[in-house]
Amino acid sequence: MIEPIGNQYIVSRPVYSANAFGEDHKKKNRHHKTFLDHLKVCCSCSTQKAKRIALSLFPIASWLPSYRVKEWLLSDIVSGISTGLVAVLQGLAFALLVNIPPSYGLYAAFFPVIVYFFLGTSRHISVGPFPVLSMMLGAVVMRLVPGDNTNDLNLNNSTNTNLTLDEQRVRVATSVTVLCGIMQVLMGCLQVGFVVIYLSESLISAFTTAAAVHVLVSQLKFMLQLTVPAHSDPFSLFKVLNSIFTQIEKTNIADLVTSLIILLVVFVVKEINQRYKAKLPVPIPIELFMTVIATGVSYGFDFKNRFNVTVVGEMPKGFQSPIAPEINYFQETIGDSFSIAIVGFAVAFSVASVYSLKYDYPIDGNQELIALGVSNIFTGSFQGFAGSTALSRSGVQESTGGKTQIAGLLSALIVLIVILAIGFLLEPLQKSVLAALALGNLKGMLMQFTELQRLWRKDKYDCLIWIMTFIFSIVLGLGLGLAASVAFQLLTIVFRTQFPKCSTLANIGRSNIYKNKKDYFDIYEPEGVKIFRCPSPIYFANIMFFKQKLIETVGFSPLRILRKRNKALKKIRKLQKKGLLQLTPKGFICTIDSFKDSDEELDNNQIEELDQPINTTDLPFQIDWNTDLPLNIEVPKINMHSLILDFSAVSFLDISSMRGLKTILQEFIRIKVDVYIVGTDDDFIEKLKRCEFFNDEVQDSIFFLTIHDAILHIWMKRDYSTSKFNPTQEKEKHLDCTINTNGGLRNRECLVPVETKF
Amino acid sequence: MIEPIGNQYIVSRPVYSANAFGEDHKKKNRHHKTFLDHLKVCCSCSTQKAKRIALSLFPIASWLPSYRVKEWLLSDIVSGISTGLVAVLQGLAFALLVNIPPSYGLYAAFFPVIVYFFLGTSRHISVGPFPVLSMMLGAVVMRLVPGDNTNDLNLNNSTNTNLTLDEQRVRVATSVTVLCGIMQVLMGCLQVGFVVIYLSESLISAFTTAAAVHVLVSQLKFMLQLTVPAHSDPFSLFKVLNSIFTQIEKTNIADLVTSLIILLVVFVVKEINQRYKAKLPVPIPIELFMTVIATGVSYGFDFKNRFNVTVVGEMPKGFQSPIAPEINYFQETIGDSFSIAIVGFAVAFSVASVYSLKYDYPIDGNQELIALGVSNIFTGSFQGFAGSTALSRSGVQESTGGKTQIAGLLSALIVLIVILAIGFLLEPLQKSVLAALALGNLKGMLMQFTELQRLWRKDKYDCLIWIMTFIFSIVLGLGLGLAASVAFQLLTIVFRTQFPKCSTLANIGRSNIYKNKKDYFDIYEPEGVKIFRCPSPIYFANIMFFKQKLIETVGFSPLRILRKRNKALKKIRKLQKKGLLQLTPKGFICTIDSFKDSDEELDNNQIEELDQPINTTDLPFQIDWNTDLPLNIEVPKINMHSLILDFSAVSFLDISSMRGLKTILQEFIRIKVDVYIVGTDDDFIEKLKRCEFFNDEVQDSIFFLTIHDAILHIWMKRDYSTSKFNPTQEKEKHLDCTINTNGGLRNRECLVPVETKF
Repeated sequence: MIEPIGNQYIVSRPVYSANAFGEDHKKKNRHHKTFLDHLKVCCSCSTQKAKRIALSLFPIASWLPSYRVKEWLLSDIVSGISTGLVAVLQGLAFALLVNIPPSYGLYAAFFPVIVYFFLGTSRHISVGPFPVLSMMLGAVVMRLVPGDNTNDLNLNNSTNTNLTLDEQRVRVATSVTVLCGIMQVLMGCLQVGFVVIYLSESLISAFTTAAAVHVLVSQLKFMLQLTVPAHSDPFSLFKVLNSIFTQIEKTNIADLVTSLIILLVVFVVKEINQRYKAKLPVPIPIELFMTVIATGVSYGFDFKNRFNVTVVGEMPKGFQSPIAPEINYFQETIGDSFSIAIVGFAVAFSVASVYSLKYDYPIDGNQELIALGVSNIFTGSFQGFAGSTALSRSGVQESTGGKTQIAGLLSALIVLIVILAIGFLLEPLQKSVLAALALGNLKGMLMQFTELQRLWRKDKYDCLIWIMTFIFSIVLGLGLGLAASVAFQLLTIVFRTQFPKCSTLANIGRSNIYKNKKDYFDIYEPEGVKIFRCPSPIYFANIMFFKQKLIETVGFSPLRILRKRNKALKKIRKLQKKGLLQLTPKGFICTIDSFKDSDEELDNNQIEELDQPINTTDLPFQIDWNTDLPLNIEVPKINMHSLILDFSAVSFLDISSMRGLKTILQEFIRIKVDVYIVGTDDDFIEKLKRCEFFNDEVQDSIFFLTIHDAILHIWMKRDYSTSKFNPTQEKEKHLDCTINTNGGLRNRECLVPVETKF
Repeated sequence: MIEPIGNQYIVSRPVYSANAFGEDHKKKNRHHKTFLDHLKVCCSCSTQKAKRIALSLFPIASWLPSYRVKEWLLSDIVSGISTGLVAVLQGLAFALLVNIPPSYGLYAAFFPVIVYFFLGTSRHISVGPFPVLSMMLGAVVMRLVPGDNTNDLNLNNSTNTNLTLDEQRVRVATSVTVLCGIMQVLMGCLQVGFVVIYLSESLISAFTTAAAVHVLVSQLKFMLQLTVPAHSDPFSLFKVLNSIFTQIEKTNIADLVTSLIILLVVFVVKEINQRYKAKLPVPIPIELFMTVIATGVSYGFDFKNRFNVTVVGEMPKGFQSPIAPEINYFQETIGDSFSIAIVGFAVAFSVASVYSLKYDYPIDGNQELIALGVSNIFTGSFQGFAGSTALSRSGVQESTGGKTQIAGLLSALIVLIVILAIGFLLEPLQKSVLAALALGNLKGMLMQFTELQRLWRKDKYDCLIWIMTFIFSIVLGLGLGLAASVAFQLLTIVFRTQFPKCSTLANIGRSNIYKNKKDYFDIYEPEGVKIFRCPSPIYFANIMFFKQKLIETVGFSPLRILRKRNKALKKIRKLQKKGLLQLTPKGFICTIDSFKDSDEELDNNQIEELDQPINTTDLPFQIDWNTDLPLNIEVPKINMHSLILDFSAVSFLDISSMRGLKTILQEFIRIKVDVYIVGTDDDFIEKLKRCEFFNDEVQDSIFFLTIHDAILHIWMKRDYSTSKFNPTQEKEKHLDCTINTNGGLRNRECLVPVETKF
């Protein structure tokens, strides 16, 4: 009964097998939803549902009407201006990563914000260029338009041949952006926003670290002002490094010095920002200061002509006319676009969910996909490139007090002003300064290396995921690397369950507690009983391992024992037919000295017979296999009568493993080892029934609620059988035989006790 | 105590938390093998080990010396001859699948057997051409040498331009064969023979069915005698069918009729063979008869000239000189070669393990890989093509009495005779006859379609694997299809655990048994306690799902409650500071009518504060959150004090899920819900400790051995707390407040009981 008595666990109830429990406690006849039911719910339609869907497509309709102008507007304005300035600089810098002129970065910083204002569900993220995406896009651009020799183009469109190199690259970048937008919209409509859950923390950490390394390497050429030929994945990173080091003596010292100074100052000020976070009203906008100063200095001292540095150059006023994407590029870049679409969404969504959790409002993954997708299509059409959200920029927007996407809209306004009016002011800015500013954001990402040690200590598999993701992303490039990493990561889930730490349990403390017998001193193992625990699901990839471990644990292969016994039985039967075994009151006497063991080959049918259950119905006695048998008949002895399988952690079985499990259970049952399965769910047994797991040998009575139930059942059964057979011991007959092997090898007398048949 | 008393489960022991149990029962200090230890064992070296490895490289050294000439030789000879005849015909037929002249099939049937004789560990399989492999090889051949316009070649080697189409195709086939052999040898040396476990039964079934469909379609052109242009994957199957149907009127009626007759006869006789298996000494070699008859008829009536049928044609006597593989093809075919290597090995190994199990001798996966690899390298060099084992041929070898690879050697001898001497006899044989003979073997494979229905009933995932593998293999082609299928299959393992069927448990029968409360009538749920069971590992892809299900089960989000309480606390504190709450003997009286609730925005720090533990140490009273609070302060009430998580089926946690789990546990603990985790392994707790899972809030005392232990503990604790507080009830003070909301909206009097602080 369930009444607490002091600190005592006191239970008294019948021993329950699953069947017995089912009889005592009636089960409800539950209707389990079938696949069709789920489909019906999913596809059902109502006005309400339609309205809800329509509303959810335009989240602005829900938040804009409740905008609190008095309380929020001011902070939105402050936040919008700060974010806008950052967005301008990041747009310019990240355009370099895409390998296109910086001015296009401004378009990428402007358009997505406008679309996201209407469609996005997050109130705090600042959409637009993101270094990792720009990097991935840059790799595609360089693959399709390598640059140095235009004859080598994979795609020689007649339309493109009259475009300059930069124009071609922009064309590629925008086409990929549109394609990736289309994919995101499609994914959003198909409600597959859940895919981001496949990007685990370790994977994202390693991937962004690798991306930071890629960014670092790709910015080197701007910092050193070297002309590096395009290299395509895989191994592009090493090829670029090689190109750089072979021409390192051509470094433009002015660029190197400028960028190092900028880097140093940015790092120091960012450190200050971080340390005095609490005391500073807003973080020092060091990037802005450095840009203004650098532009001024570059203009004042005419760096461009004096030191031959590369500057941002012409900033065309206003927008470019929209262009249609090149369908030809779509096929070439479908894989990359998919990676970009996924990474872009994953980053935006994870940042958005941080804020949604913090400020406690709902965001919708699928709507985010649609919003980002439409942004990208729109941006791509107006010659911007794919965006997501930069962590640093969203951080600025939120920390300076941004409450809603009104702040985003205002930041777009700032970008618009730069595009339309004051862009020309940035023309003397060195590209190396932009590169240095981009690098300034990488410290956090690169510092993730330190996680590695911690991961190794905590979880080897997570550590392995980190290392492999990093290697894949560095070696294969970000797009292919991400795909390989996700595949590898999913594989680790298989690995984790593939080699389960199976263990043998024993009773600890003589109550109903069973634990790994290797772990404790005071253990008690019931005689002749093995308790085997498998702590993971069993399926096609580990059923062999399970069998092997089980055989190791019990110490013998049941199939082999079965065959040996059947072979021995054949011989005994032959002896008996020939009248060489005689029944005496004391047992059987074998009347010959030796028996030629023609170890003849068995044909197919005979071999199959050996795997059948042992059938002794035609013999007038039963054989006790654990005693010595007459003559040279040798059968390994086993001292085990019951096997308990603890399946409480076996979450599922698949068809392959079910067949394997059934085979091994059958083998055990055929050599008279009782098998019990304990700790399973009711569903588990249901499923086995549905799969025709049970037959005459493997019956559904093998299930018990707990190990202790099974142990008690075994004891009762043994007790019963002892009490049944022991009083009649005088009836037992023995198989006596005297053997003289030829050539005087050895003489032996053996007395084989056999149980008589009643 | 563990003594059986009738059919009773009687237990009396202390209630155990994991810690308490650890104190009562000392644990051994076990040294767990580290990664390094395993590596050491793996890399250790000794003379014995070296000897064993050397011996295992040449299995022939172990079985040939013990060959029983008298008993085995005769049956090996009979088996060898039968197998040899089948091998000749299959070699010719399968060469058509590779799209090369039939005579090369004889080389493919000869060389691998010789190598396997020395290196193979299986005694019963007949290595050589296998239709699925030939098919896969054929697809590569057609991709690289499409045939109709040689200008279109992807690889325009100067060396190859002076070769005929057939010669080029043979060149491709042999190069791929060598590459695939090299891969197999490498895999064997790296001991990765275990990869075959990733091919589950459902996958193999669907893959071979798809292969059979591919074979069927590819043989159609020979049966109808149509010229079908080459089509490369993906979608090649549909393209070929389209080509065939557009020119169906050009069918050669003679070929069609011949092949239909052959097919019919072969099917009928095979059926007879199957049905009278037991009575027939050897199966009727119908293929042989049909070949002889067809050749005779074709020669006698001069089919070639009269009906314009295509015949086998010139059979060059003797062997071709060995050639080196074309390294240029290697890069183009690396993926296909890998698939071929894997499929070839998988098929050979699975057939071999069937026989090894039947005749009870060991086979070694890695050695098999090496044997097949060397065979393929050797065969490829002598212009044969990749082989594995054909089920039908191995069946012949075993069923006609083959005991060892001596039979294989003899079958090679038969092939040799055909190559060297009597090959020319086959020259008038129609290709359509060969095609029909190849199709004759497909019935079994195609009949696997019927498995689908059975699978659907048994296991949806397995059924899904079947369908997807079939679709992938049909649509993407066999090579790419296999890769996609394996990936998909591994994904299903993730799927299976990704959406675990979480359930709420309740006590059944008032003893220590807890089951899904939805399943039973007679349930008992302790008041204020929820028992939540997660039946699968928890990791990055399902931690969100786990949280969501848990929140659904308990009916509230602990984070939201925590925030509401903290907000309410802020208000109460404000009231108290302003002196608006007065302590009376009966409780607190709120002395104002209304309290302006400035629902002001909180800044970041304040928001973070809301997630902190509730701190009431500065208040002179404690707040009972489950009663009405004064004024318009509303906090959702919860009627739950304890949460028990049954983790007995949670085989592992990864880092991502650990963080997620910790967060949610903390949230529960902060709103004063006690959390207990039960049913875990000791290793599990160890790992959490290693990962710094525990802190001041989430302590390692939350682990209990069983649900019942936790329940008893909770009861004791509640009892204790009741008995401690109840006698002092007179000390309790109440928070009285009378509220008059403005504008006469409603008048309310509330009496809020609060527990006083001592």
